[in-house]
Amino acid sequence: MSEQQKNRVSVEIYGQTYNIVGTESPGHLRFVAASVDDQMRMIKRANPSLDSAKLAVLTACNAVNDYLKLNKQVEILESQLKKLKDEVND
Amino acid sequence: MSEQQKNRVSVEIYGQTYNIVGTESPGHLRFVAASVDDQMRMIKRANPSLDSAKLAVLTACNAVNDYLKLNKQVEILESQLKKLKDEVND
Repeated sequence: MSEQQKNRVSVEIYGQTYNIVGTESPGHLRFVAASVDDQMRMIKRANPSLDSAKLAVLTACNAVNDYLKLNKQVEILESQLKKLKDEVND
Repeated sequence: MSEQQKNRVSVEIYGQTYNIVGTESPGHLRFVAASVDDQMRMIKRANPSLDSAKLAVLTACNAVNDYLKLNKQVEILESQLKKLKDEVND
């Protein structure tokens, strides 16, 4: 178990209250909640018939997709960095 | 508007069918959907009282949080890479 201090914030996302817990700062946790709220409202504008569960699922899909794309970018950057370090050390 | 080909897949996430559209491959889109489904089920096991909308919102929060952490890692890697390139060129 982590010994890191856990922060707990109460946030409102799409009209519902959530208690979010994390080792990140309360400001960061609120920013995450606000991003999810924004994205759900954005998807709702484009798809007015979707209920909140479906909006949240599609928001989660977008977020996971963005994460996977960024993860690929991290792999590329790490490989470029390794190559450059090897060149410098040769 | 992008001229890239859009792929459309029908996926099941937490018992509901969704039509997911994206420029990514159908396999990638299915992988995203399976990840969201997995995460919702994992959060459900830890919080059996949550309904599917709340599970999806918390899954979205986790994904956005992971994305932001990874984004910080990208910034650090890009800065390391820039520094090393500057050293090599000096």
